[in-house]
Amino acid sequence: MTSTKSYAVHNPTDTFKPLAIERRTPTAHDVEIEILFCGVCHSDIHQARNEWSNTVYPCVPGHEIVGRITQVGDHVKKFKAGDLVGVGCMVDSCHECASCDAHQEQFCEKGAIFTYNSPDKHTDGHTFGGYSDRVVVDESFVLSVPENLELAAVAPLLCAGITTYSPIKRWGIKPGDKVGVVGLGGLGHMALKFAHAFGAKTVLFTTSPGKTEDAKRLGADEVVVSKNEDEMAAQVGSFDFIIDTVSADHDINTYLNLLKIDGTLTLVGAPEKPLPVAAFGLIFGRKVLTGSLIGGIKETQEMLDFCGKHDIASDIEMIDIQQVNDAYERILKSDVKYRFVIDMQSLKNEA
Amino acid sequence: MTSTKSYAVHNPTDTFKPLAIERRTPTAHDVEIEILFCGVCHSDIHQARNEWSNTVYPCVPGHEIVGRITQVGDHVKKFKAGDLVGVGCMVDSCHECASCDAHQEQFCEKGAIFTYNSPDKHTDGHTFGGYSDRVVVDESFVLSVPENLELAAVAPLLCAGITTYSPIKRWGIKPGDKVGVVGLGGLGHMALKFAHAFGAKTVLFTTSPGKTEDAKRLGADEVVVSKNEDEMAAQVGSFDFIIDTVSADHDINTYLNLLKIDGTLTLVGAPEKPLPVAAFGLIFGRKVLTGSLIGGIKETQEMLDFCGKHDIASDIEMIDIQQVNDAYERILKSDVKYRFVIDMQSLKNEA
Repeated sequence: MTSTKSYAVHNPTDTFKPLAIERRTPTAHDVEIEILFCGVCHSDIHQARNEWSNTVYPCVPGHEIVGRITQVGDHVKKFKAGDLVGVGCMVDSCHECASCDAHQEQFCEKGAIFTYNSPDKHTDGHTFGGYSDRVVVDESFVLSVPENLELAAVAPLLCAGITTYSPIKRWGIKPGDKVGVVGLGGLGHMALKFAHAFGAKTVLFTTSPGKTEDAKRLGADEVVVSKNEDEMAAQVGSFDFIIDTVSADHDINTYLNLLKIDGTLTLVGAPEKPLPVAAFGLIFGRKVLTGSLIGGIKETQEMLDFCGKHDIASDIEMIDIQQVNDAYERILKSDVKYRFVIDMQSLKNEA
Repeated sequence: MTSTKSYAVHNPTDTFKPLAIERRTPTAHDVEIEILFCGVCHSDIHQARNEWSNTVYPCVPGHEIVGRITQVGDHVKKFKAGDLVGVGCMVDSCHECASCDAHQEQFCEKGAIFTYNSPDKHTDGHTFGGYSDRVVVDESFVLSVPENLELAAVAPLLCAGITTYSPIKRWGIKPGDKVGVVGLGGLGHMALKFAHAFGAKTVLFTTSPGKTEDAKRLGADEVVVSKNEDEMAAQVGSFDFIIDTVSADHDINTYLNLLKIDGTLTLVGAPEKPLPVAAFGLIFGRKVLTGSLIGGIKETQEMLDFCGKHDIASDIEMIDIQQVNDAYERILKSDVKYRFVIDMQSLKNEA
């Protein structure tokens, strides 16, 4: 075991403070990664504050990790020391069930081992995430990072990227399709970039008229202010696909109504309260309401390769780890364009 | 125009009484059909009683029609006098839009012309359904009926049959799939027959333990009493597909929870109130909630041919048209196994 610097909270109302945690000595199939950058996901806040009622403390969040390999186990085949790599939301799974066989480790029947707050089969404790100096991960859950992209801006691809890429891929978005993106945050800005890169005509739905210019820069062909009934009415029945990134309460039937016959609406933001869905809205037009959860490791690598080829990364604001408490407050006010990424040099520099 | 006997209501609280209506003289593309049997669909009740707030009176329901062709127009190619044929929920559409081109006339962009209560472009009135002696229909909306089936039992295939066949076909149900059917009524008993014929392992969900034996006779491999929590818990995560035929309020999340990853739940019954849907239930497992509305004419013919080949028809109770008021009351108490069909000879016999 090796002692590693991290930032942690010890209870739901705590602020982040330095904590020394233990990382295992790499096994034959592990790689050890020096973490260079880590994105800040809204899930980090939910978990740090026990908003999903399952947090184990101390809690070290962070599942948008990029860094450099410092050492590899004897049987590691895909990587060598010095490689730039990424780690996303998962660090392990059972490798044996139907979901793992289907490269959908996020749905592992025995439970995927998430990057933080999951049982750690190596230590009998729980997993610690990327708000730390280094991490040790089974090579099969480590991703290669395209060399042509700005490394810090790659970090959010490991969660916000795959979360939006996966449903766009699954539902076969192709040139000429009309794709709506609901909400312009960390997920929404990536959804715009991907839908645009897949050749779709893209429309951003936002409650904030001030986001129009930025949305167009990010790939939107059109921006609709969702509070404007006339603007919404003009879009009825015209979408092949809508990706809804909003976790605040909102009327999903309005968006189902914008779909073409056989169109699909995918939820990637999860409102807490059940959504009232009009059955007639699904029946007339055979519309599809579905959801999507990150993506498997194979698809995450495919997404990263796609990003390298199409020069796609996240729009980020870099922070030092000492600013993470303030960053959380700004995220809760949607005051970030569009993802905070922690420069982990700031952790190394601490005494 | 020809005067034709029918049974009609004149307002939402009226009972059915005889009414002479006019049928057009067949055009070059029309066939005239002597109606032999007509099924009684729950929609007939909704429409007769103006429960969808759009009924035009007098109202002659009936869209599960089988009969014999009495004459054909000069340009009719598919049919000749004497043929046994069926007419379902639609009698016309625009023939030009994307939906019509895609053989999905039920979603015609200009509005499908339904068999009753739609604007009738030939008469400037509205269409009258199958509770009548004869009907005149464009040949492109007339179906061939398999000769090996009991004709009266074919009638319900024209609505209950295609409504359940279409989603089972669309979602690719195949041998070995596990298919759930929620509710054992007119739609549910056909869904069981089709899912079984497609080679699926079928499970009926019902609130009535007394339906077990009948459900197994109709094709269910297993029957689950949905009020029994233990029985329901044993089914969690096991279904490829569920078809929900229940229009009474019920918890859809319970059934979404029974789906496998990537499983699909199709609504064909439409509860009036919006269904509360838990977003997490769709996201974890990428589950699909959708709906389905009858089917196009091409698919309806395919369904009838399938029924002929697999010896599938509806389980029916035959009534005279003079009993239709009583039949409505029995339908509302779910007291029918599983579809009333009107023997139209009873109308001919009236003075």
